[in-house]
Amino acid sequence: MIFLKGEEYMKSKENFVDYSLYLVTERQMLRNISMEEAVEQAILGGVTLVQLREKDVTTLEFYNIAVKVKKITDKYSIPLIINDRLDIALAVDAAGLHVGQSDMPAKVARKILGDNKILGVSAATINEALQAVEDGADYIGTGAVFATDTKKDAKYVNIRQLKEITGKISIPVVAIGGINEDNIDILKGTGIKGVAVVSAIMGKENIRKASENLKKTWETCRKGR
Amino acid sequence: MIFLKGEEYMKSKENFVDYSLYLVTERQMLRNISMEEAVEQAILGGVTLVQLREKDVTTLEFYNIAVKVKKITDKYSIPLIINDRLDIALAVDAAGLHVGQSDMPAKVARKILGDNKILGVSAATINEALQAVEDGADYIGTGAVFATDTKKDAKYVNIRQLKEITGKISIPVVAIGGINEDNIDILKGTGIKGVAVVSAIMGKENIRKASENLKKTWETCRKGR
Repeated sequence: MIFLKGEEYMKSKENFVDYSLYLVTERQMLRNISMEEAVEQAILGGVTLVQLREKDVTTLEFYNIAVKVKKITDKYSIPLIINDRLDIALAVDAAGLHVGQSDMPAKVARKILGDNKILGVSAATINEALQAVEDGADYIGTGAVFATDTKKDAKYVNIRQLKEITGKISIPVVAIGGINEDNIDILKGTGIKGVAVVSAIMGKENIRKASENLKKTWETCRKGR
Repeated sequence: MIFLKGEEYMKSKENFVDYSLYLVTERQMLRNISMEEAVEQAILGGVTLVQLREKDVTTLEFYNIAVKVKKITDKYSIPLIINDRLDIALAVDAAGLHVGQSDMPAKVARKILGDNKILGVSAATINEALQAVEDGADYIGTGAVFATDTKKDAKYVNIRQLKEITGKISIPVVAIGGINEDNIDILKGTGIKGVAVVSAIMGKENIRKASENLKKTWETCRKGR
């Protein structure tokens, strides 16, 4: 998917990455399906970006699952972003890294990653978002915009706050947290580049169909804004 | 401590690293003292190498403590090795990384680390040790040589097995697991380059004194072999 190098690439990095339907994985939610199969079904359903998020696993387990998932994302030319773990991102040559506020400082991560990799940062406030931009983030993940069971310690970002962030930030903003087919239209007109979903895809019996439906609903919303 | 570059450095890397008294940290054991203070006391007592091992902390917490400990190890020109986490090793520009059999494959870690960093690998069998050498390890950590409470899932390596490993392996071997002042002499003549200790230093009221005593006892053993 990424062909250019250096400055030419940097100028167009944003254009290469389609943030519209951003899958964040969650092993606990999978129903009799392997992680790599789930990711493949989600991609076939229209997911445009995949973030592999693993907690409470050994580094070897994370590495092994990342290798498997990378094969799938490569097959469909979908960028793979690794959550938190820069070591895993480097080890599997992922497209990028996503860091939260309890992970490695974005500035340090950017220095090690170099400029050709995607760096995403979770930001729940305008100050965190501005700091992330200064630290070299390519995009911001903001939320939780709706109630979520996935992250027990989630801070919440309401629609007014979300609009404030997209209004002040020059890089793409992706909304996350409890987003599903029924509430996605509330995000219309907020200026976000995409929606990040966990349970609305990973927790479904038919992952491909769930992704297709979300994609359709989101495309309708986008046209409407 | 490390002044040379490239091939010249590589040839002499082994000579630069003194494995004789290798401290592996354990936060749980500290008694009213910060990690960086404990490390400083241990270095003043004669520790020659420090491995920072942190489990069940966020990446940010690990990074922050690593930054603090690195300031101490730099002050005394003692190499700092990071346990498991290559991302932290890179982020603080540590002297090296130590990986176990549940961590990132040594071969992958070596590729990312480059040749100028120290790579240690835990190996409990001769096959694991030979594989580690093939994968680019600079030294092997072998154990547990004695009963230990630090690692509940520890495999054990007896003196015969330890001698077999040092006999077949061309790189330095460090023994680990339950080593203390009272049993250190059992390791005499095994061909190890040093002893790695956790509780015999970290769990003591007087860390500096404990390190001094271990150092003295080990030096006596070395001369005797």
